[in-house]
Amino acid sequence: MNALSDPQRYGALAAGELRLELEDVYARYTACLDEERFEDWPEFFTDPCVYKIVPRDNFERGLPLATWLCESKGYLADRVTAIRKTAVYAPRYVRRIVSGIRVLGWTESVLEVRASYLALETLQDELTRVFNAGQYRDKLVVDGGELKFREKLCIFDSLLVPNSLIYPL
Amino acid sequence: MNALSDPQRYGALAAGELRLELEDVYARYTACLDEERFEDWPEFFTDPCVYKIVPRDNFERGLPLATWLCESKGYLADRVTAIRKTAVYAPRYVRRIVSGIRVLGWTESVLEVRASYLALETLQDELTRVFNAGQYRDKLVVDGGELKFREKLCIFDSLLVPNSLIYPL
Amino acid sequence: MNALSDPQRYGALAAGELRLELEDVYARYTACLDEERFEDWPEFFTDPCVYKIVPRDNFERGLPLATWLCESKGYLADRVTAIRKTAVYAPRYVRRIVSGIRVLGWTESVLEVRASYLALETLQDELTRVFNAGQYRDKLVVDGGELKFREKLCIFDSLLVPNSLIYPL
Repeated sequence: MNALSDPQRYGALAAGELRLELEDVYARYTACLDEERFEDWPEFFTDPCVYKIVPRDNFERGLPLATWLCESKGYLADRVTAIRKTAVYAPRYVRRIVSGIRVLGWTESVLEVRASYLALETLQDELTRVFNAGQYRDKLVVDGGELKFREKLCIFDSLLVPNSLIYPL
Repeated sequence: MNALSDPQRYGALAAGELRLELEDVYARYTACLDEERFEDWPEFFTDPCVYKIVPRDNFERGLPLATWLCESKGYLADRVTAIRKTAVYAPRYVRRIVSGIRVLGWTESVLEVRASYLALETLQDELTRVFNAGQYRDKLVVDGGELKFREKLCIFDSLLVPNSLIYPL
Repeated sequence: MNALSDPQRYGALAAGELRLELEDVYARYTACLDEERFEDWPEFFTDPCVYKIVPRDNFERGLPLATWLCESKGYLADRVTAIRKTAVYAPRYVRRIVSGIRVLGWTESVLEVRASYLALETLQDELTRVFNAGQYRDKLVVDGGELKFREKLCIFDSLLVPNSLIYPL
């Protein structure tokens, strides 16, 4: 899907073609996380970047508090190291469902996109359950010939999650 | 996505282009509701229209009883007024996931479409949970250059919902 | 969506066109099951075929044990007979949400595709709940002018399901 190699060509894409590109980007993004290829995850971002997980109430009130905040690929990689080596947590699988991808449009070379996500969690010997749902509010740019996230906000509907937030959304 | 301005041109769209248009329509529709821009919701419909929420058992047995029934944009607007001013209910967020959009085809100027939906509900200080799942059975027409719902049936799989049905599906 | 009638033409499709074809295939597949038209279900497969439901832990460890295994259309039809005539189970509706369709590419005339699925279950007089989530790992070929499943693996995240697995995924 990545035959186009510069922002001008992406900007010239018809709405439908752009939607198809984005569906591919989000499918590869969620598969990377669902399949636990966490080391590849920072490659979906530019450097610097903003990756933020924030409760919807805080976001809508303009409160700055975020549950996670990463501002560079190095910081994203630190998160991965924590998952692999540092953090203590019960084994689990997380699966991410994305729906309603919506292209808000280009502002100069930045493409604004929103979508809904649903994260499901399965702990060992437990049933699969709803973990977290919310909205992605993303800004993408063309970087190295591919659409990458310059900014990704994960705004989740609940203040509570069934367990700690271990893996990225 | 709305460059096309008459039914003939929509009718001439290749299946893939039509699917892309519909993905955009459903993404804008669910975002309107998820972001609680309820006042914009009637604009997705023609006037008159049919908007109906009905349990699957009733629907399959041909029983007329519906949980919600609106037959004009004015009626839809009344629902919005009830949400904003009249109804008493605990604050909550609802998020709608749409999947499996399926184009059944055109009958003259009416486009028949089906899809699955999943509504998730988050009450204040509670976990996000499954609220309601079912099938959209929709009929769309080109109205003012855009695809609008002439009929939208929300046929839900369960007779029960965890709480009252406050917001549209 | 099925105007193309041979593998060469499918192979020549641009990535976006192929994605649109697949979205249609998966939408028709899940609708067939969600609407309980089980007798049509084997028609989505080639003969012979592999249809397998397997827990993720087993799959990742290379263990051969599968929850379901069918290796021909006749075997799939046997399953349908069991659902219709033999099996004893409480009435329920199952709804399947598919997300993140990802085209891995063609190997000769075989198209490899992955996607996430979420199955929701509604028992009579009960709330809709998460039944099962996992990944489809599919291999499709062009058969009779249409894309059909030569192999469909349903790899589910949990070892547990809330009830027996009665209906296909």
